[in-house]
Amino acid sequence: MKELIKNRINNLRLVMQKKGLDSYLIYGTDPHLSEYLPTHWQTRPYISGFTGSAGMVIVSHKKAALWTDSRYFLQAEEQLAGTGIELVKMRTPGFPEPAEWLKMNLEKGATVGTDEWCISVSQFRQLQSNLGQSGINLVESGDLLNEMWTDRPSLPDSAIYEHELRYSCTDRQEKINTICNELEKSGANLQIITALDDLAWTFNLRGTDVEYNPVFMAYASISREKTILFVEERKLQQELKSKLESEGIQLMAYNNLANYLRQLPKNTRILIDPDRTNQAIRGNIPDRCVVVESLSIPCKLKAIKTDAEIKNIRQAMLKDGVAMVEFLFWLENNLSEIRVTEYTIAEKLTEFRSKQPDYKGISFFPIVGYKEHGAIVHFHVSEENALPIEKDGFLLFDSGGQYSDGTTDITRTVALSELSTRQKTDFTLILKGMISLTLAKFPVNTRGYHLDILARKDLWQHGMNYGHGTGHGVGYFLNVHEGPMAIRQEFNDRAIEADMVLSNEPAFYRLGEYGLRTENMMVCLKDESTEFGDFLRFDTLTLCPIDTNAIDKSMLNSEEINWLNNYHQRVFEELEPLVDEELKGFLKEQTRAI
Amino acid sequence: MKELIKNRINNLRLVMQKKGLDSYLIYGTDPHLSEYLPTHWQTRPYISGFTGSAGMVIVSHKKAALWTDSRYFLQAEEQLAGTGIELVKMRTPGFPEPAEWLKMNLEKGATVGTDEWCISVSQFRQLQSNLGQSGINLVESGDLLNEMWTDRPSLPDSAIYEHELRYSCTDRQEKINTICNELEKSGANLQIITALDDLAWTFNLRGTDVEYNPVFMAYASISREKTILFVEERKLQQELKSKLESEGIQLMAYNNLANYLRQLPKNTRILIDPDRTNQAIRGNIPDRCVVVESLSIPCKLKAIKTDAEIKNIRQAMLKDGVAMVEFLFWLENNLSEIRVTEYTIAEKLTEFRSKQPDYKGISFFPIVGYKEHGAIVHFHVSEENALPIEKDGFLLFDSGGQYSDGTTDITRTVALSELSTRQKTDFTLILKGMISLTLAKFPVNTRGYHLDILARKDLWQHGMNYGHGTGHGVGYFLNVHEGPMAIRQEFNDRAIEADMVLSNEPAFYRLGEYGLRTENMMVCLKDESTEFGDFLRFDTLTLCPIDTNAIDKSMLNSEEINWLNNYHQRVFEELEPLVDEELKGFLKEQTRAI
Repeated sequence: MKELIKNRINNLRLVMQKKGLDSYLIYGTDPHLSEYLPTHWQTRPYISGFTGSAGMVIVSHKKAALWTDSRYFLQAEEQLAGTGIELVKMRTPGFPEPAEWLKMNLEKGATVGTDEWCISVSQFRQLQSNLGQSGINLVESGDLLNEMWTDRPSLPDSAIYEHELRYSCTDRQEKINTICNELEKSGANLQIITALDDLAWTFNLRGTDVEYNPVFMAYASISREKTILFVEERKLQQELKSKLESEGIQLMAYNNLANYLRQLPKNTRILIDPDRTNQAIRGNIPDRCVVVESLSIPCKLKAIKTDAEIKNIRQAMLKDGVAMVEFLFWLENNLSEIRVTEYTIAEKLTEFRSKQPDYKGISFFPIVGYKEHGAIVHFHVSEENALPIEKDGFLLFDSGGQYSDGTTDITRTVALSELSTRQKTDFTLILKGMISLTLAKFPVNTRGYHLDILARKDLWQHGMNYGHGTGHGVGYFLNVHEGPMAIRQEFNDRAIEADMVLSNEPAFYRLGEYGLRTENMMVCLKDESTEFGDFLRFDTLTLCPIDTNAIDKSMLNSEEINWLNNYHQRVFEELEPLVDEELKGFLKEQTRAI
Repeated sequence: MKELIKNRINNLRLVMQKKGLDSYLIYGTDPHLSEYLPTHWQTRPYISGFTGSAGMVIVSHKKAALWTDSRYFLQAEEQLAGTGIELVKMRTPGFPEPAEWLKMNLEKGATVGTDEWCISVSQFRQLQSNLGQSGINLVESGDLLNEMWTDRPSLPDSAIYEHELRYSCTDRQEKINTICNELEKSGANLQIITALDDLAWTFNLRGTDVEYNPVFMAYASISREKTILFVEERKLQQELKSKLESEGIQLMAYNNLANYLRQLPKNTRILIDPDRTNQAIRGNIPDRCVVVESLSIPCKLKAIKTDAEIKNIRQAMLKDGVAMVEFLFWLENNLSEIRVTEYTIAEKLTEFRSKQPDYKGISFFPIVGYKEHGAIVHFHVSEENALPIEKDGFLLFDSGGQYSDGTTDITRTVALSELSTRQKTDFTLILKGMISLTLAKFPVNTRGYHLDILARKDLWQHGMNYGHGTGHGVGYFLNVHEGPMAIRQEFNDRAIEADMVLSNEPAFYRLGEYGLRTENMMVCLKDESTEFGDFLRFDTLTLCPIDTNAIDKSMLNSEEINWLNNYHQRVFEELEPLVDEELKGFLKEQTRAI
């Protein structure tokens, strides 16, 4: 593998030389700026061998470097060893940002290329301006890997299917109409939809082009006059195709978008989300059109779940809760009996979910971390690297399901033996953080970066912290990571609004020892309105016991104990009618008050 | 007064017409973008009659409007009544931003003027770009008021004096040297210092050109080659002038800055803080120079107090604490005996401070709010509007002193009678917020907008809030409001760093009833460093009892009670040796444990 990577980098350098490029930058995404990628677009693992879900690669003629975040430092170190690619730790003192690295390694007048289809307008603009200050040119070079990647997988070709109205809850014509209304408010009259989840949501269509996210490769152009879906027609069965056409939706080939953009008439006012649109699309808009930069409208709309969607999500949570309780019961009964590894756990979590009605798949590959593997934040377990589980210490599992009526994401960490005082302290501190965020009440316009400290402050008091965000949006039978809002320290100017669905997942990692994370999904609800503001609060959606054996009760105040006991009572009451007779006692035990 | 204002606005319209302007915008600051202004620069009260400390005015040919924030809504409503100027409430739903207002009231092609000396580079740039999108031009029109304000006060002329080294603690040559080192790190080689407190700090000089802030009108140019102070020479006595010149500091006339800038040679790399530099300075920098936009270096440096400064500030706090206790004792003994009004309180607060050694003045005009006046956030008491104080309800007083060894800012709210349950609840909620922020421990790089919620969350839980920030930086024998950092909801990318001095002042206002605010000053200190980060914490500087009669003890947890009792014990131990015999018993009583 190391030699293969070295060869690929050498081949890339030959292509770079031919094109007159001093460096080539791989953002490692696709033209839709997706998180999960079809193999065709897995350019980062192809060129570097690094398989983490985030990172970028820069290759110059003398050096090559990969940037990734703290979740992947360990994994990247292992996978890059011997390839000649240096690991650059993101947001870590002493490590340069990509632009700084380029300035350090290139002369004035140098040219850096990147594939304009796989970088956002914002990223391109920022990097171009930054490098420009040092006389380095960033150019749209197209996809250099195409010229060397001989066995490159073709674009995915899976069938598109409808997200039936009884699940999607809102007719696509109504959604398109709402988008057009919002466009007018923004001063635009047309939006190019590029994010695959925005697209799936707008059209009530789903696909299987990538793992875990039920999306399909396409673009759309939405305006009051015309709705165009740019998609390979072979992905649509005749019936669906006719249905879409009968609704006035015009179909065009996926790769026809650039041509379409270039012929747009004067006075077209195109809404472009600079963070969610690739630079090539921006570049193909003719000068005669007006560009209005704003948040993607379906991105904004789909984050606010409808009452019908929230009702369905609560159904999905019941199913997911039953699957989780079945899993916990299986774990308790089998741990001493049969050989159980981290990989078995991942399989079992999937198996129990798959028995639930409306199950459509898992929402991401389960993260199962026993003991020291738990401290590798996004540990990717395989049959080869899986640790066998013994009755000792902590086991962390982060998993989720795709159901037609909702997407789930839950993490529990369980104690497999008596714990030390320190272990209980650690576990209780993150539980306190999760409860504190859950109980937050806050005025409208509050941002996620205002709330994030609630999950961290108890850890901070002990000189502890975790290196990732606290909460992300969750799609509705869509991507498990959904914007535009988040609960994290980083600046993000989107307020937390009523009917948004978010995760709440404080964590703590002791490197080489164990990892702890407790994650519930929550929905934001309207609370009281007073003369001092309109207030919001959270309601927990996830229904699954939290391991009370790992708690140091003396560290909880009465409010926290009440929350936990009420939560467990609710979990019991909601799941008890749905589980088999033999599980009822187990559930009762797992949800007993402390 | 109403007719006078109407006349002035009509006169301004005549000047606007002559200059071909459709609107004229008055930011209401001076060329140094100061908060406290010499009368010469009090353009906002001149044109509008509104005397609050924040706000801007736009006059068009048909309309006129004044923007101010929630602290001043009541005051502005009263003062604008009958003038024809509409009040536009800032950050309030339904009220337009100034740019929106201009777009609503002007045609495409219209021209808006503003005095380029009294608007920051950022404000000018942002407004120009915003208006430009609607085809409205923002132009540098100079100061239109000059042509109509016949009895305009001249520029202040007060003497400049040295902040002696035993107080300033760091030699000005050392400060200038540090500024030059920092300039090089920023890629610049020259900074124009424009903010008056930056200037006073850099040169260890002080003045009395404005009320409350011990600053003087000047600019400076700092580079490795040359230090130039642009100041009217008559403000410097011969001895000080000779001393500065002997140290190699060149003196130039105050109004010579623009000429100086225009002759700067090629390759000069000028650091400009776009938020702290006026547009005229930017406009006078020749194209042959390079502009590096960055935070003002003395602004950054002076916010981090030296150990010697912090030691002195603690001395100033002892003096301020003694003055406050003397005041509280006087209040207790005189309230039933003599006529006491809000104005008497303001005078007494000043009188007790003035008896302390190294007293240089008050750091702002005391805000004294009895009963409903307490709910007017920045109530400006006068002999005319002062309420007489009775033994009933709440009395709020926010005051501070300037001492050679530090600037103070403290608010206390005291109960003058038995309180209702609701009054005690309100008081205790803001106390909880203040304690929560005081006890925060947080990693480096934490911003003020991360911490702000700690002061608010208990209020939020009750559907309550306050409409201003929680903490501001405080100068060292300088401005009581000092940047660049703050603790508030608004985005401000400056981290809270060790050795910064900040206020902590959660509050709550019941309109028409009372206002509550409890304010201590704190210094940020290094706490432990762990593998999870380098942590910081706060240490309280202010030494003055908090009224325990207003507290509902049942609402405090043991951590909060401990903090309060420890704080009071410290207040007693530190102040007891410094107060007169007859006050010792009073202090003991005021600081008794709850």
